[in-house]
Amino acid sequence: MAASMKAFVMHGIGEVGIIDKPVPRPGPNDAIVRTTAALICTSDTHTVAGAIGPRKDLTLGHEAVGVIHELGGAVEATGLFKVGQRVAVNAITPCYACGNCQRGFPSQCGGMLGGWKFANVKDGSMAEYFHVNDAVANLAPIPDDLTDEQAAYCCDMLSTGFVAAEFGNIPIGGSVAVFGVGPIGMMAIVGARLCGAGLVIGVESRPDRASMARKFGADIIVDYTKEDPVEAIRRATSGEGVDTAIEALGTPQTFASSVSAARPGGTISNVGYHGDGDTVPIPRLDWGVGMSDKTIRTALCPGGSERMGRLMRLIQTERVDPLAMTTHRFKFDQIEKAFGMMQTKEDNMIKPLITF
Amino acid sequence: MAASMKAFVMHGIGEVGIIDKPVPRPGPNDAIVRTTAALICTSDTHTVAGAIGPRKDLTLGHEAVGVIHELGGAVEATGLFKVGQRVAVNAITPCYACGNCQRGFPSQCGGMLGGWKFANVKDGSMAEYFHVNDAVANLAPIPDDLTDEQAAYCCDMLSTGFVAAEFGNIPIGGSVAVFGVGPIGMMAIVGARLCGAGLVIGVESRPDRASMARKFGADIIVDYTKEDPVEAIRRATSGEGVDTAIEALGTPQTFASSVSAARPGGTISNVGYHGDGDTVPIPRLDWGVGMSDKTIRTALCPGGSERMGRLMRLIQTERVDPLAMTTHRFKFDQIEKAFGMMQTKEDNMIKPLITF
Amino acid sequence: MAASMKAFVMHGIGEVGIIDKPVPRPGPNDAIVRTTAALICTSDTHTVAGAIGPRKDLTLGHEAVGVIHELGGAVEATGLFKVGQRVAVNAITPCYACGNCQRGFPSQCGGMLGGWKFANVKDGSMAEYFHVNDAVANLAPIPDDLTDEQAAYCCDMLSTGFVAAEFGNIPIGGSVAVFGVGPIGMMAIVGARLCGAGLVIGVESRPDRASMARKFGADIIVDYTKEDPVEAIRRATSGEGVDTAIEALGTPQTFASSVSAARPGGTISNVGYHGDGDTVPIPRLDWGVGMSDKTIRTALCPGGSERMGRLMRLIQTERVDPLAMTTHRFKFDQIEKAFGMMQTKEDNMIKPLITF
Amino acid sequence: MAASMKAFVMHGIGEVGIIDKPVPRPGPNDAIVRTTAALICTSDTHTVAGAIGPRKDLTLGHEAVGVIHELGGAVEATGLFKVGQRVAVNAITPCYACGNCQRGFPSQCGGMLGGWKFANVKDGSMAEYFHVNDAVANLAPIPDDLTDEQAAYCCDMLSTGFVAAEFGNIPIGGSVAVFGVGPIGMMAIVGARLCGAGLVIGVESRPDRASMARKFGADIIVDYTKEDPVEAIRRATSGEGVDTAIEALGTPQTFASSVSAARPGGTISNVGYHGDGDTVPIPRLDWGVGMSDKTIRTALCPGGSERMGRLMRLIQTERVDPLAMTTHRFKFDQIEKAFGMMQTKEDNMIKPLITF
Repeated sequence: MAASMKAFVMHGIGEVGIIDKPVPRPGPNDAIVRTTAALICTSDTHTVAGAIGPRKDLTLGHEAVGVIHELGGAVEATGLFKVGQRVAVNAITPCYACGNCQRGFPSQCGGMLGGWKFANVKDGSMAEYFHVNDAVANLAPIPDDLTDEQAAYCCDMLSTGFVAAEFGNIPIGGSVAVFGVGPIGMMAIVGARLCGAGLVIGVESRPDRASMARKFGADIIVDYTKEDPVEAIRRATSGEGVDTAIEALGTPQTFASSVSAARPGGTISNVGYHGDGDTVPIPRLDWGVGMSDKTIRTALCPGGSERMGRLMRLIQTERVDPLAMTTHRFKFDQIEKAFGMMQTKEDNMIKPLITF
Repeated sequence: MAASMKAFVMHGIGEVGIIDKPVPRPGPNDAIVRTTAALICTSDTHTVAGAIGPRKDLTLGHEAVGVIHELGGAVEATGLFKVGQRVAVNAITPCYACGNCQRGFPSQCGGMLGGWKFANVKDGSMAEYFHVNDAVANLAPIPDDLTDEQAAYCCDMLSTGFVAAEFGNIPIGGSVAVFGVGPIGMMAIVGARLCGAGLVIGVESRPDRASMARKFGADIIVDYTKEDPVEAIRRATSGEGVDTAIEALGTPQTFASSVSAARPGGTISNVGYHGDGDTVPIPRLDWGVGMSDKTIRTALCPGGSERMGRLMRLIQTERVDPLAMTTHRFKFDQIEKAFGMMQTKEDNMIKPLITF
Repeated sequence: MAASMKAFVMHGIGEVGIIDKPVPRPGPNDAIVRTTAALICTSDTHTVAGAIGPRKDLTLGHEAVGVIHELGGAVEATGLFKVGQRVAVNAITPCYACGNCQRGFPSQCGGMLGGWKFANVKDGSMAEYFHVNDAVANLAPIPDDLTDEQAAYCCDMLSTGFVAAEFGNIPIGGSVAVFGVGPIGMMAIVGARLCGAGLVIGVESRPDRASMARKFGADIIVDYTKEDPVEAIRRATSGEGVDTAIEALGTPQTFASSVSAARPGGTISNVGYHGDGDTVPIPRLDWGVGMSDKTIRTALCPGGSERMGRLMRLIQTERVDPLAMTTHRFKFDQIEKAFGMMQTKEDNMIKPLITF
Repeated sequence: MAASMKAFVMHGIGEVGIIDKPVPRPGPNDAIVRTTAALICTSDTHTVAGAIGPRKDLTLGHEAVGVIHELGGAVEATGLFKVGQRVAVNAITPCYACGNCQRGFPSQCGGMLGGWKFANVKDGSMAEYFHVNDAVANLAPIPDDLTDEQAAYCCDMLSTGFVAAEFGNIPIGGSVAVFGVGPIGMMAIVGARLCGAGLVIGVESRPDRASMARKFGADIIVDYTKEDPVEAIRRATSGEGVDTAIEALGTPQTFASSVSAARPGGTISNVGYHGDGDTVPIPRLDWGVGMSDKTIRTALCPGGSERMGRLMRLIQTERVDPLAMTTHRFKFDQIEKAFGMMQTKEDNMIKPLITF
């Protein structure tokens, strides 16, 4: 008889709860991890709201770390991992063998957005145990001097926030605007500084987020409820616009503003999830009628153990302290309450940390 | 009394004609060229139709070559050029000294699209003589084994068509679709092959253009009036879409199709001039809700003597024969007739060559 | 009792022969291929001469294609391949899961040069059957319109020759010199043209190779026995040197000449195997005392099914006809004779094709 | 009668002194700057020692800032600058018009290392006034909130030190080793952190420099007199070597160690001036016999007002405090003493600042 575990699931659109599920078993290239720490992501709330369609008792969650519980035969045979080892697993778990993975786009594993498996095409990680496909590439050992809680922030927050900057073509000393300063935007600010930005402008109206953004390194905060953010950004950059505009929210308005705020030859780096409408608008004139040398880049959280290792190192060497984003903490049995607060962002919630 | 010359001008929106103007004189860093061969560009017809607003007796034209007539003092002092020398001048004439030029975006010289000076902010080159700013960087000597007529094609057609491919991130053996196979699209097809494409798909309905596109190297022509081009492109690429979609037309429909036709991780390279509407639409789902690793790049015809030298070399070493695009020839005194035909594309006009 | 097969092995340094070996069996992620066509590589002769140390009855060969004979369990479970399918396998077979593979350097799989497994750390493919590790990523289906013989050229010749050009930062219309025009150099010439070179200079003294190089697209051949190649290259490029110098031989002299022949800001792209000496010399002054903006890039034949697909497509769409390099043909039972001729390059051998 | 000024010159090899010279006058595209602050560079001491051959009464110095004293006619006509304005001028002053400048290699202006004009092919800036060629591109206004002394560090120290990191292909969270921690090495450490390094290892034996390097952000200092630096670097990086090895010294030993210390696929970024020997050695085996995917990049201090603006911004926004390198200060009339100390590095001199 299969062992049983608790899992936090989406029963259907709008409905969540904790249920019992069998502890998953690994195929030859897989691993099973016993969860120790996890984070709730706003995208989970979108999923529950129906953004990717209906699901039946799908386990939620994609930001989790833990301890290896069981290894598939081929993984065990490599001798690279052992049961009991602490590991982090990125939100995106590519196969690293298909055409898109070989081409250097593992987040598009097997097809568009195909690296996104947790809480999408298979059970997520907000459970007492979770399944890891292609474990050799996806299990990232956690260094001894890092806590599980610190490591959990690498699964999505650091990876997505930083890639926005990495894909932004920021020249050293260049200027960057970040539209939307939630947890991804916070890490985009840190990422922009890590990628050499000489001026980082956050666009945000909420005082608590503005304050945290300054602590994470924003030089200027523009409150879009008080002034036109594109004008404010141009004013701060001698009228030219920024080298890099990061879209970390996913609305037509912020996307269009990102295009407008970028200088000619600049880059718009989109990591926002665009959930509404048939089209996303490029403002024609500010895009230079298609000839402005502006580049619009997009990304989905890059995964893989190699990158996870580098992200964890940045915490080890104190380049970033992501725990500063932890506004709330819960035990796993309080997950429903935590999830409800994340849906409404009440009590200025930025990132709730769940321990097991 | 200043010497006089004939110039083909835009009197106002919708009105063109030949008038007398003084032969221009150079400032210290300028040169004056006596025109020998020129091409009419469809973008001139847009300008006359009012695309960039009203102009009063502005000389048209930006694709011309000729013979150095006079050099500014500082240019002469360099000893690099001499009166009587055959030279080609790109449509775009950046200063190569300002911030955007130093950043590597000379087409955005001094501001968005600021490298575009001919027939925009100063008189164009469809005249017996034309003025060249920043001559040291913009005068490109024509090699002895190239005719003036061949060189004229480098000013815009090769430079713009090729840059669409150069900015397309084409992997060797990769797949490319070109939307819109006018003269720029033809050269984008050649450019795609020069940049390593293993499969080039042209999207075009006119039989004459389709036929010429095949001669320039298209492997497949998709007639968008007979089938959905995105579906046809996917079918030709195992369902994946192309590595690179080149937008060479400038309509919302072709732009959106370009985004859809590109595979995850692919690049949409836009050189089409988008003349209408407040916004240009990105199809949200085919864009992977902003997380598909697709890149949208834009460009304006890169100028400069160094690039012109490389473009002319490609004709010298027979990588491309642009004269094959010359469907019509006229003397300068027939320019009004030629221009009228270009407005309507009658008689299957692709590119009319003007000699002086 | 295990089935038996014939294999062409290195008994020890300097000794080769055909012996019987068991047909290999696959692990869960592996495949076994029945060989149909193969090529002998000069690097095999280096191996037999002792370049990588002693080996005992190691099967030689790394350029082979064939038919799937058996699939490992995990490979079969993917449903991606079936027994009897025609496949090509690159000389380099990375795991695509380790850190170096994830970083985008699969040829350095697991450590320096670690993707090179055939005839190095495991039996090669010059046998009636060969073993393919990490088969999902390394089995490349051969298109119906390609012969096995054509596909065999993709395993190393096209992949290595082309990567020399791909890593060369060739600007469109740029100039390229290829030092050493053996089969890799031939494909580097083709690669240079595929990557946009406007001028390709081959450095070679043998008339048969010079002639073949011209057919593959070299614009100029410099005979280094008759003139200093660096001077000749500079003369052909207005005194500046080439944008890209490709080292396809692996001697200190050609390497140093490559550095000297590249213009400031140019790239030296090395694919030559450097077999001798403690150090390889950079000529200090022609390197601009370390400040010339010259780049020295190196590469080992990139593998993987995705790349193999693109290389095969270039044959399908007639961008390259590698069979033109086939100077000799042998049956597998004549392999010892063929190998002996490859060691001495007698009878102007360039590439001997082996059929099974 | 021309106005006269004091200039610190190299009379000949090994001989320096202050002499009177006429205040220089500008050509149409030039400017004259009245010096307010300057730095002595070790490369000046190499020049005096004969590294670039004999010179007669050549003014030394290439790190200086000041106030615009006179503008050439064409510069004045742009209206971009005015007499009395505070400006910084990079050590390298390209024309920004020639082929190499257009290609994106302005430091190689007109030919190898041709952007290096000060104290090489024309008088340097260690005088009461200095001449600036191509002033529109080379005069960088100093922001009001920056002192002249801060700005002086941008002319070479920040630009060269940072470019070593910018050209190093540092992945975010990657590892970097800096060989030679003089002032350029210090700034390479800062640059490495600005470019995202998660681990920065300095190789240096002098305690004062080691201590300063830690303050500038080195995580580890390896004393090469006490242990083999390559072994120590591998030990600190799980045996793999660093992503990026920066050569900031210019000796055969440190260069070879840089190649050895870089991991497969890693980059060796050389900014050291290699002054001795016919060749600089690449260690063959650690270079993977030319197939390790290692890249060797070189650079000469990138100039231009646009970059200078970004470098000064990094001081404005407190990403770097270069004044911390100022170990000594002198008045211009004490320059001979300062220069003598720089030759011997006595009193632990790192960077002497000269005021006027």
